[in-house]
Amino acid sequence: MTSEPPAARRTYSYLGPAGTFTEAALAQVPEARAQEWRPVRNVGEALSDVTEGRSDAAVIAIENSVDGGVSTAQDALATVPGLRIVGEYLVPVEFVLVARPGATLDDVSVVAAHPVAYAQCLQWLSRALPAHSHIPAASNVASAMGLIDGSIAADAAIAPPGILEHHELELLASAIGDNPNAVTRFVLVSKTVAPPPPTGADKTSLIVELPDDHPGALLEMLEQFATRGINLSLLASRPIGDALGRYRFVIDADGHIEDERMADALLGLRRFSPQVVFLGSYPRADRAVVHYPERYSDDVFVEARDWLRGLISGEPDDA
Amino acid sequence: MTSEPPAARRTYSYLGPAGTFTEAALAQVPEARAQEWRPVRNVGEALSDVTEGRSDAAVIAIENSVDGGVSTAQDALATVPGLRIVGEYLVPVEFVLVARPGATLDDVSVVAAHPVAYAQCLQWLSRALPAHSHIPAASNVASAMGLIDGSIAADAAIAPPGILEHHELELLASAIGDNPNAVTRFVLVSKTVAPPPPTGADKTSLIVELPDDHPGALLEMLEQFATRGINLSLLASRPIGDALGRYRFVIDADGHIEDERMADALLGLRRFSPQVVFLGSYPRADRAVVHYPERYSDDVFVEARDWLRGLISGEPDDA
Amino acid sequence: MTSEPPAARRTYSYLGPAGTFTEAALAQVPEARAQEWRPVRNVGEALSDVTEGRSDAAVIAIENSVDGGVSTAQDALATVPGLRIVGEYLVPVEFVLVARPGATLDDVSVVAAHPVAYAQCLQWLSRALPAHSHIPAASNVASAMGLIDGSIAADAAIAPPGILEHHELELLASAIGDNPNAVTRFVLVSKTVAPPPPTGADKTSLIVELPDDHPGALLEMLEQFATRGINLSLLASRPIGDALGRYRFVIDADGHIEDERMADALLGLRRFSPQVVFLGSYPRADRAVVHYPERYSDDVFVEARDWLRGLISGEPDDA
Amino acid sequence: MTSEPPAARRTYSYLGPAGTFTEAALAQVPEARAQEWRPVRNVGEALSDVTEGRSDAAVIAIENSVDGGVSTAQDALATVPGLRIVGEYLVPVEFVLVARPGATLDDVSVVAAHPVAYAQCLQWLSRALPAHSHIPAASNVASAMGLIDGSIAADAAIAPPGILEHHELELLASAIGDNPNAVTRFVLVSKTVAPPPPTGADKTSLIVELPDDHPGALLEMLEQFATRGINLSLLASRPIGDALGRYRFVIDADGHIEDERMADALLGLRRFSPQVVFLGSYPRADRAVVHYPERYSDDVFVEARDWLRGLISGEPDDA
Repeated sequence: MTSEPPAARRTYSYLGPAGTFTEAALAQVPEARAQEWRPVRNVGEALSDVTEGRSDAAVIAIENSVDGGVSTAQDALATVPGLRIVGEYLVPVEFVLVARPGATLDDVSVVAAHPVAYAQCLQWLSRALPAHSHIPAASNVASAMGLIDGSIAADAAIAPPGILEHHELELLASAIGDNPNAVTRFVLVSKTVAPPPPTGADKTSLIVELPDDHPGALLEMLEQFATRGINLSLLASRPIGDALGRYRFVIDADGHIEDERMADALLGLRRFSPQVVFLGSYPRADRAVVHYPERYSDDVFVEARDWLRGLISGEPDDA
Repeated sequence: MTSEPPAARRTYSYLGPAGTFTEAALAQVPEARAQEWRPVRNVGEALSDVTEGRSDAAVIAIENSVDGGVSTAQDALATVPGLRIVGEYLVPVEFVLVARPGATLDDVSVVAAHPVAYAQCLQWLSRALPAHSHIPAASNVASAMGLIDGSIAADAAIAPPGILEHHELELLASAIGDNPNAVTRFVLVSKTVAPPPPTGADKTSLIVELPDDHPGALLEMLEQFATRGINLSLLASRPIGDALGRYRFVIDADGHIEDERMADALLGLRRFSPQVVFLGSYPRADRAVVHYPERYSDDVFVEARDWLRGLISGEPDDA
Repeated sequence: MTSEPPAARRTYSYLGPAGTFTEAALAQVPEARAQEWRPVRNVGEALSDVTEGRSDAAVIAIENSVDGGVSTAQDALATVPGLRIVGEYLVPVEFVLVARPGATLDDVSVVAAHPVAYAQCLQWLSRALPAHSHIPAASNVASAMGLIDGSIAADAAIAPPGILEHHELELLASAIGDNPNAVTRFVLVSKTVAPPPPTGADKTSLIVELPDDHPGALLEMLEQFATRGINLSLLASRPIGDALGRYRFVIDADGHIEDERMADALLGLRRFSPQVVFLGSYPRADRAVVHYPERYSDDVFVEARDWLRGLISGEPDDA
Repeated sequence: MTSEPPAARRTYSYLGPAGTFTEAALAQVPEARAQEWRPVRNVGEALSDVTEGRSDAAVIAIENSVDGGVSTAQDALATVPGLRIVGEYLVPVEFVLVARPGATLDDVSVVAAHPVAYAQCLQWLSRALPAHSHIPAASNVASAMGLIDGSIAADAAIAPPGILEHHELELLASAIGDNPNAVTRFVLVSKTVAPPPPTGADKTSLIVELPDDHPGALLEMLEQFATRGINLSLLASRPIGDALGRYRFVIDADGHIEDERMADALLGLRRFSPQVVFLGSYPRADRAVVHYPERYSDDVFVEARDWLRGLISGEPDDA
């Protein structure tokens, strides 16, 4: 009689400490439940955990509806080889203002906040605390931690609501973000693997460089998508870094690499571009089914290939 | 000891009678030497000889450098199924003015000529015979035959130079065509067969209908070629015939169906157009090697497919 | 007491003789009523009547729904300077088979017909007169005239129905054209004048040469129209005549030169093309109002110019 | 005898305090010499100084060769009306590591740095101070100021080299930036005024929204430039902020609004886009003359307009 050895626990890296928005994203990953969650200090550490085998996957923030692409994450994905995006998760961005137990809003003159969070709450702060000053913190949780351990000389901190589950803090105000619909998009990144199967509601992420700097190169790149009926949900330019005016493009395109129209677009991109990094095809967080003109359906591609094969073999053209 | 049975003689249809430019084109077809040449009265008869098995192939005029596409030939190829162009031949268009033996230019007041030939010699006629009148003839040879047998009441006839090899006629003037570089393009048409192998100096002929009448449909069709670096040597519109403003397009494109870029363009056309007729890929008459940007070479297409296959299987992206 | 001097009668040239389709087109020109109609033998003569002042205008056939562009007319308009199209007229193309008085269909073995008319009746002839032979005639009326005066050795002639009003002939069969909806488009051509004012249902005719022979030149030309929401009702290629593969394009575009979007397209064409011939803007024969996206309306163009002027002068941008 | 009243001193706002890269940019502005320089705490304050009349102009960082667009500056220019860019300046980005007088590199375990500066020195820090930890500072000068006044609990600070001219600090290391060619682009922003005259080496900055989210909208926008031979030196997408996937585009295009091709492109954009913000045309910092195909020169535009005017007036077409 033999017994199955227990499956090894999997490890997931995320921007810690406990209570960050990234942890909230990780909590949405079904296969991460009851596995090991590994807090790290920045996206570079999260990705090297994956490439060097310390973690099976990492969750990183990739885009914010107010602030735009997270450039460090985009740049890391563009340059670190051996990674693939396998999932996408959305976390509403809400902020609370917290203080040490017993404090009130009247006591607040100095506010600790991560600079991005600070920018997203500026309208509220200008109204509620017109005379405040700001101390930048390293993360949305570090701001509150600094209050607790006294390492930041502030009276209050901007933090995600989840902070209250982990630490004893006074809630001074909630929903202080200027845009109530703000949302941050996170991706789950693993080592290079085969993409998860198509679901009909998929997204493909790419990094593309242009062949050279002429008026039509970007146009030609975008035509690779437009001429296959593929919509882009993200197009961001990032400097390659060697000179002003040299960019690579971060792209999210609707559809899956195993969709015929997407495969055809990828072939076109590869032939055109000096550098295409395929970051992955994965189910969209919102599960919205991708719509496209019927003329770009898989059937149409398959039929055309059969037709071409017939022409070359000399079968009569029945068109 | 066995002996090979003699190969069956092949039959080639052409617009007769002997002496036409079409016969001169047929004389350029190596495999037609010492075979049976079958003169016919029009392009419809030539093509039905092929589809109904009376001939193995037919030579038909398809385009003239002065007059443009031969619309009856283009329309026949667009609508008669089961045909394929397998070769192309160029014949310089030269005309002579001939008369009955003993006649001189001074005797000429009425000139018999096929209307197209007449139009191509009009400048010369206006100078040399300002007071002439014109009787139309059914072909470039019928004009001269009518002189001989008296069925046309003319004093002289415009005909190809070859007429003098077949009939006893007085040469009144030669090289009377207004454009000394005029040339007519002929194609050799067989039943549907596999295309002859690529030579690097090939042409592909197509008939394409547009999906519907909107400002961008023609643009989109042409982009199928332009985005694969394919030059068009012929683009002619022909009415479909059911209403004004509805056209099909007659296209000659540089390259062979077995060239990757052409195959890819054909796939794109087939997916886009309600009707694509592939007329054939065949060596160009002028044997001019087709040049195209390196990025559209076969290697680039093959490499891109390998890359795509690797992405789908989960191999690390080495790009 | 003074009296107005009588207005000089105007002269209109047309392809004669009386009874041709061209005469039927001229009968549709309101301002030609009760003026002098001058029959000529070909399109060249009609146009030189205008350029040399013998006529005020000429009516010429420009396109046939079955046969396509009338290449001689297109080529003449492309090369003869000083002309402008000022009107368009449609004539249904119907054919009858006529013979000398007393003849019957059983008597017919040889048919006289203009080659274009012959082609359009070929299906009927193949059914009704399978053993006939064909003698080409110079015009649709000349075929019947040759019967009458004995100059053509035929038993019957294909002609327009109007022939019966002018000549005593036996009607053997009517409506013998293969396409019952066939129609020919005629244009009225004058010396260069200002275009007639826009009606909202206008057409603009152009001849355009491409800058040089590269894959994208035709695309770029067509984009001049597509990017201004202008539909093309005719696009025909005509050889320039100096070499195979060199074309000019004959274009009919929906709209009037005084429409902002058309004026802008013409500017774009002029900047792009080595040669643009503006043949005219004139009311469509079918009076069909031209529809186009709202974003290409005159208002939008005018507003954009005002905006640009404000930017340059330093007015605050109110956008 | 009257004497000229002294000209009022002009005021220029910049991100302070003294010693920042922004001050280095301001030092390049010739007309700012010997005028009042007003240090401010952030880009919002700098721009409201201008719109509210406290300053005549402001210098703000707009793009970094390593880090990409400065999103707060781009967003501010997109949303604050009444501003115009009138000049551009480049400042090489160099960093030094400084400490309190007498300290050495061995004493350093905690480093204060603005997050962007920290990211640009990370490779050097990983080699030289592998065990360091990071405290974020509000600016590149605030990091060093915090050392001096004790408000930041760090041992060293990353700062621009200019800091040593203003404060007594120990230089621990210089040229510690990871990219020796890093450069930041600054712009000089005034109230809306007429653009400075064209110099032949100009740039035009725009913010453009797309009409709606369909595959071709971005393509169509880019074609407005490409079809006039205009190169883009910057194309960045910024979220509009109301939902994920909705972007505006920040564009720098080569050329001046008074160049015909640029004026024409702006007209096209205005007709196409629901919102175009013209930020200004101004001389490029690098004074590099803009090259473009001859067919887009001013002469060609002027000639085409003359031609069009002639057509409409009925002058003979001399083309």
